Amino acid sequence: MTTQEILKNAAAARRALAGLQTDDKNRALLAMAEHLEKAAPAILAANAEDLKIFGSSMTVVMQDRLRLTEQRIREMAQGIRDVAALPDPVGAVLERIERPNGMVIEKTAVAIGVVAIIYESRPNVTSDAAALAFKSGNVCILRSGKEAWRSAKAIADALRQGLVGAGLPADSVQLIEDTSRQSARELMEAVGFVDLLIPRGGPGLINACLEGAKVPVIQTGTGICHIYVDAYADLEMALNIVENAKTSRPSVCNAAEVCLVHREIAEAFLPRLKERLKQVEFRCDPESLAYLQGTPAGERDFDTEFLDYILAVRVVADVEEALEHIAAHSTGHSEAIVTENRENAALFTTAVDSAAVYVNVSTRFTDGGQFGLGCEMGISTQKLHARGPMGLRELTTYKYIVRGNGQIRG
Amino acid sequence: MTTQEILKNAAAARRALAGLQTDDKNRALLAMAEHLEKAAPAILAANAEDLKIFGSSMTVVMQDRLRLTEQRIREMAQGIRDVAALPDPVGAVLERIERPNGMVIEKTAVAIGVVAIIYESRPNVTSDAAALAFKSGNVCILRSGKEAWRSAKAIADALRQGLVGAGLPADSVQLIEDTSRQSARELMEAVGFVDLLIPRGGPGLINACLEGAKVPVIQTGTGICHIYVDAYADLEMALNIVENAKTSRPSVCNAAEVCLVHREIAEAFLPRLKERLKQVEFRCDPESLAYLQGTPAGERDFDTEFLDYILAVRVVADVEEALEHIAAHSTGHSEAIVTENRENAALFTTAVDSAAVYVNVSTRFTDGGQFGLGCEMGISTQKLHARGPMGLRELTTYKYIVRGNGQIRG
Repeated sequence: MTTQEILKNAAAARRALAGLQTDDKNRALLAMAEHLEKAAPAILAANAEDLKIFGSSMTVVMQDRLRLTEQRIREMAQGIRDVAALPDPVGAVLERIERPNGMVIEKTAVAIGVVAIIYESRPNVTSDAAALAFKSGNVCILRSGKEAWRSAKAIADALRQGLVGAGLPADSVQLIEDTSRQSARELMEAVGFVDLLIPRGGPGLINACLEGAKVPVIQTGTGICHIYVDAYADLEMALNIVENAKTSRPSVCNAAEVCLVHREIAEAFLPRLKERLKQVEFRCDPESLAYLQGTPAGERDFDTEFLDYILAVRVVADVEEALEHIAAHSTGHSEAIVTENRENAALFTTAVDSAAVYVNVSTRFTDGGQFGLGCEMGISTQKLHARGPMGLRELTTYKYIVRGNGQIRG
Repeated sequence: MTTQEILKNAAAARRALAGLQTDDKNRALLAMAEHLEKAAPAILAANAEDLKIFGSSMTVVMQDRLRLTEQRIREMAQGIRDVAALPDPVGAVLERIERPNGMVIEKTAVAIGVVAIIYESRPNVTSDAAALAFKSGNVCILRSGKEAWRSAKAIADALRQGLVGAGLPADSVQLIEDTSRQSARELMEAVGFVDLLIPRGGPGLINACLEGAKVPVIQTGTGICHIYVDAYADLEMALNIVENAKTSRPSVCNAAEVCLVHREIAEAFLPRLKERLKQVEFRCDPESLAYLQGTPAGERDFDTEFLDYILAVRVVADVEEALEHIAAHSTGHSEAIVTENRENAALFTTAVDSAAVYVNVSTRFTDGGQFGLGCEMGISTQKLHARGPMGLRELTTYKYIVRGNGQIRG
């Protein structure tokens, strides 16, 4: 099927979804989970083929991302069941206004419409994204990277069987067949068909969408996260937080990439940091270099999402200098201050212009699950519509429903 | 001053605004209103010059839009005082989440940052937009059309004097000096400097921004609003609503442009509509033509925002056909159904995908003041971030402020 046909099918399916009751949606989600588990042999066979064709040109980490197992398929099905258990965001009356003329305005949460997701080689995104989009009343169009396409196709087929089994249009979930750049371009330019495009992947993909899209895009993911260790920091706490934010999972967007240290405590703190983070390479400004004996920082080291055991370090004169550095280099994802000083904490939380601003907490908590949203479609680093972890609610918009008995405007 | 210098000044001013208390903002707004009234002679002189240079090439309506009087300046000042009296949207804790590990997450409303407004020849937009942006904590950059630039400059100067009088950076409100297309392009491409661009004006301006902008834009204004008169309509109510929506102010975006009529009541309703809307030209589909004796509708008549005493009319078989017509032709602004049938009303409010959906109410109410928001920056016809009338709250975003005592992620 061509991408244009898929876009038309999505438009046809959206009406059916807009009016669905919560129970019907949950029933369909459970059917999708069941069909996914039943289709495990077919999904594993497709995945083996993907690995056979593309595995040899991949790093071990990439192969691991692509590889499915029975256990992983069970987890994907459980993920769908978890989404079924979450509250339905659609239909909520966000505000109710009674006007003096008697008309009643209800600001009501509704689905966005057709949501397209462009992703890379994690096959589980297929079911995660489909479940979130469906629960929030949206038709979804999925475009997987070519390396994972066979796996994604087998997963999408199972989900569609679940939909049909529940008496709902299979086209609520569609996978694009063309994995060339052409199909991504068609999605980006599908004005009137795609209401929201979410790219999930590396900076190359995200930038291509930001530059090329004519439909609304939500920018996700890139995190050059900073931790500022203030003169009033509890140094043991600071060590724990920097260690956790840097090393607990360096490959994710909420991992710290930069540590800024107040000059007054640099001598006491940095040698201990070096001692604690033995596996980390430090990229140092001239002042921190003396304490860390790391690599002198290059021109781009304070603007790089390393996603690795590398930490850029700079000594600053005060919280103001830290704020200036963050304003100049942050991607607006997550930043933390470690301090026992209330005034500096307040200055930091007010001035830092990022989705999540932490006081004495690791940046690693910027995550839908950790925030209690139950799930996430990605972390928005833009300011409009949604900021930070995007759960079900962030996949809705609203409309004003106004009821009256003949009101006219004077 | 060049546009690039203005962008840099805006970036420098934003920190000061982000931390302001409500009282300080209101004091500054009152000072801005006072300086505006004091500067009335200078503003009127500048306005006379604008009219002298550009008036002869304008229609009477356009001249009237451009013309200022003492009375209009007093109204502009009162508008600023009204904004001062509205609640401050910044700093509100929209949600508070305590997590099991003891960290506390506060989803907190914050200013968007730097908001640029490109408008045309209404000088009063200068003070309206500046007051709304300022109260919501945003630095604003104003770009007036060349016809109104001298007037806008005199107004902006007065507002800036008010800011300085209140001890705040004058660059919180700046007017672009260059009125060529070049400056509009520079604003559209000011990534990292402009957080939100709002075009206020005709479709040419709005489309140019949607096509050319690399910064986030909110699409405002175009309204091809529909009224569907159902078989179960109270015909007298329907006449009142269509008359009000079409003729009370045809030049605005919430005026109706299309009337869809159920076949069963067409014969009873349409001749009465013709009788009631004597000054209106009807552009008719073949079936309504028989009852209205209007002009046969041309190819574009169901896709045109007439903004005039013209109404396109079509007879439909049922509510489903009305919904299909609306889905194909609406701009997503405002649509109404007139019916006494609850089921049809529910079907309509669920299926119509517009910012405002009315049951037995005129579309003319889609307006910040009429919705009780106190003011508006425009009517958003897009789905992301804000939909419908944009008041102060819609000029904010949020960030998550997370406080703890050393929490790390396991």
